[in-house]
Amino acid sequence: MKQLLLSLIFFGSVGAMAQTTFEEDSTMIRNIYSEVLAHGECHENLRVLCKDIGARLSGSAEADQAIAWGKALLENYGFQNVHLQEVEVPHWVRGEGEYGYFESAGERHPTNICALGGSVGCSGVITAEVVEVKTFEELEALGRERIEGKIVLFNRPMDPLLINTGAAYGGAYNQRGQGASEASRYGAAAVLVRSLTHALDTFPHTGGMHYDDDVERIPAAAISTVHASELSEALKRDPKLRYTLYLGCQRFEDKMQANVIGELPGSVYPEEYIVVGGHLDSWDIGEGAHDDGAGIVQSIEVLRALQALDVPLKRTLRVVLYINEENGNNGGETYARVARETGMNHYAAIESDAGGFTPRGFRLQGNDEQYEVMKTWQPLFEPYNVHLFKRGFSGVDIGPLKNDTTALFGLVPDGQRYFDYHHSNRDTFENVNKRELELGAATIASLVYLVDRRGW
Amino acid sequence: MKQLLLSLIFFGSVGAMAQTTFEEDSTMIRNIYSEVLAHGECHENLRVLCKDIGARLSGSAEADQAIAWGKALLENYGFQNVHLQEVEVPHWVRGEGEYGYFESAGERHPTNICALGGSVGCSGVITAEVVEVKTFEELEALGRERIEGKIVLFNRPMDPLLINTGAAYGGAYNQRGQGASEASRYGAAAVLVRSLTHALDTFPHTGGMHYDDDVERIPAAAISTVHASELSEALKRDPKLRYTLYLGCQRFEDKMQANVIGELPGSVYPEEYIVVGGHLDSWDIGEGAHDDGAGIVQSIEVLRALQALDVPLKRTLRVVLYINEENGNNGGETYARVARETGMNHYAAIESDAGGFTPRGFRLQGNDEQYEVMKTWQPLFEPYNVHLFKRGFSGVDIGPLKNDTTALFGLVPDGQRYFDYHHSNRDTFENVNKRELELGAATIASLVYLVDRRGW
Repeated sequence: MKQLLLSLIFFGSVGAMAQTTFEEDSTMIRNIYSEVLAHGECHENLRVLCKDIGARLSGSAEADQAIAWGKALLENYGFQNVHLQEVEVPHWVRGEGEYGYFESAGERHPTNICALGGSVGCSGVITAEVVEVKTFEELEALGRERIEGKIVLFNRPMDPLLINTGAAYGGAYNQRGQGASEASRYGAAAVLVRSLTHALDTFPHTGGMHYDDDVERIPAAAISTVHASELSEALKRDPKLRYTLYLGCQRFEDKMQANVIGELPGSVYPEEYIVVGGHLDSWDIGEGAHDDGAGIVQSIEVLRALQALDVPLKRTLRVVLYINEENGNNGGETYARVARETGMNHYAAIESDAGGFTPRGFRLQGNDEQYEVMKTWQPLFEPYNVHLFKRGFSGVDIGPLKNDTTALFGLVPDGQRYFDYHHSNRDTFENVNKRELELGAATIASLVYLVDRRGW
Repeated sequence: MKQLLLSLIFFGSVGAMAQTTFEEDSTMIRNIYSEVLAHGECHENLRVLCKDIGARLSGSAEADQAIAWGKALLENYGFQNVHLQEVEVPHWVRGEGEYGYFESAGERHPTNICALGGSVGCSGVITAEVVEVKTFEELEALGRERIEGKIVLFNRPMDPLLINTGAAYGGAYNQRGQGASEASRYGAAAVLVRSLTHALDTFPHTGGMHYDDDVERIPAAAISTVHASELSEALKRDPKLRYTLYLGCQRFEDKMQANVIGELPGSVYPEEYIVVGGHLDSWDIGEGAHDDGAGIVQSIEVLRALQALDVPLKRTLRVVLYINEENGNNGGETYARVARETGMNHYAAIESDAGGFTPRGFRLQGNDEQYEVMKTWQPLFEPYNVHLFKRGFSGVDIGPLKNDTTALFGLVPDGQRYFDYHHSNRDTFENVNKRELELGAATIASLVYLVDRRGW
């Protein structure tokens, strides 16, 4: 910082200062990347979160453990104002013994399935014929006569032509989120939803689903893409084949859990906040490594690295480990509500919740000025091959902070293999690369530095 | 193409044509990406190459199988002028029973090692003290007195601070390539080289090495990074510990193998060639999936996709599956020599040999005009998040084609996890993502289209 002050004294004119600032900022950003790549602790922290705690669905004992782990870690790093913020969360449990198979030509074909999060369980084993559809329009065209009492297979794949895999996910998502409600309107007994992944493999991918208030709640399960295709082929040969499904899941009373918060205090505007975060909860299968252990440990690493480098921050930098992104977003909603009620000024919020892959840039939900300013930072990220600075969706947890002034940024990592792991047993620590994870953390930390230093 | 011709008729002026050309090119490139993402066969071809043939070091029976597989595949796709080009290659064999361990405080510590490619074997088991160095300067400072009869451990890690992992590889490479010759000058009995990978794991990574003519040839092995670190720690406690090494490798007479060549003929300048390729040989451990099965199946996919889309090519497009990149580059040298001797005109050559990861762009070895033209294509790749268009090294196989006129391009994929797999048992089909592989193929095919269509 001494060097910077000297530079400011020597190059006091605006033009020269802009030039100097770019060089100073370049140097600081290089220091940030070097700190994280040489001394980063996010990979080891992720190992502990994934291997010692593992899957941690909101409401579970493992989520309680993760909250305690997060708080202890933030305290251990010496961050300020480390505290829990209570959040009411749903408590849904997969239970034991879920399975599904079909029988055709006298042979039994097991299929890999898993209940969708929030599904009702089966009161007994369900055996029924299967109707395959790809859209809700097809469902409507078939009508109650052809659907009543049957199991509906939603089998529309993610579109492989979309380069943005998140958009492909969005294009197939309504089958999982809304399929049970739509099928229930026509009297379906249950639904199977083709797993939301590009991969053709045997892993079922769970995820959130929703029941409309005006429908009977029917069981809903994800089926692996290989088995969805197998079932679809078998239906062509034997339209009367019967599928047998059992789900043991159930929902209990809501529980109190918490967001975990820690800070590096600002020296000039301590009451203006820049928030970095991800979500601490995960689905109950796999280890929640990319989704969103990566975002958690990267966000913590941002504070660790800036503190280690003694980077002077004008504003208070907060890390928030949100709870309950996966099945409710009560963590993000609670955080934003408390912020509004207490009149907190959030200058910016940054979320990492798209996997611990090589960072490609950021998407901004913000005003025109913020967008124009952000674009001027692109050359500073050029040495790190971080090119993408666009408008777009930031993140589920920080979404409720949206207002006219707060800039919301979402880290955009390379997303090509994200949905191979997402919400499945493949989302494990082993599938996160240390360097890719660290580069993401360094990229967020650099953005925090620029937002605080240059702002708008 | 009809649409293009109509456009040319309607927008005959130069200005309007430039505009139309960008749109037409955008459409064609979108078609290329869609063809590869929807109907690509490169992932399945890679599975066959990796699983049915596997590792295929030059000179091996598996390399012969790979050559036959490649020729049959090119013929099967209906490419023209499919033929083999004879290449003399070395024939080195790992042999059986290689191992290494150290003994300290009465305990035996096994270490994971593998012979470097081209190393001499041990005439008997070698047991000796170990001297650790990080540089050749340290070796010189120690001198013959401290080195003679001992095993030298080269233990300089790859620099984690370099964003370009290839540069980090380059910075550590001389230990593997030249370490045995340098240590031999001081009478060392053998060398162990820390594996060239960022990962801290237990996999040894092999790779090529060289003996200077004026030194005694001593055995050289790679040691896993975990075991290199373990051995280094043990040496601090017990500088007199003894390491035991056995390598069973040997070199046989050179053999004749071949480059595999196929073509899509050009319609306007059939005697000008654009060449795409990778290397068919691999090291003898792992499956050569990223290195360079990926480049092989991507290069074949380029011709398949352009043929399937009936893209009109002015120049002849060749695919070359080079042999012997890993330990000699006789395939690349032979190809270039024949091209010179027969007066072939190579307009451009493109290589994929940096892994089947998400494509980031290209590096060009070419003249200023080619570089300026290439940079104008960047906006066409924007929708695919392909941003990097720089000068730099293209590829080992196509390097010998370098002259004043031929443009040499190297595909640059995301390289952060490449060296986790490179030259080790982890370089398997399972570690290649289908979409990332396909996006690379589509990116090369799009470049081929632009080089042929726009040229310089």
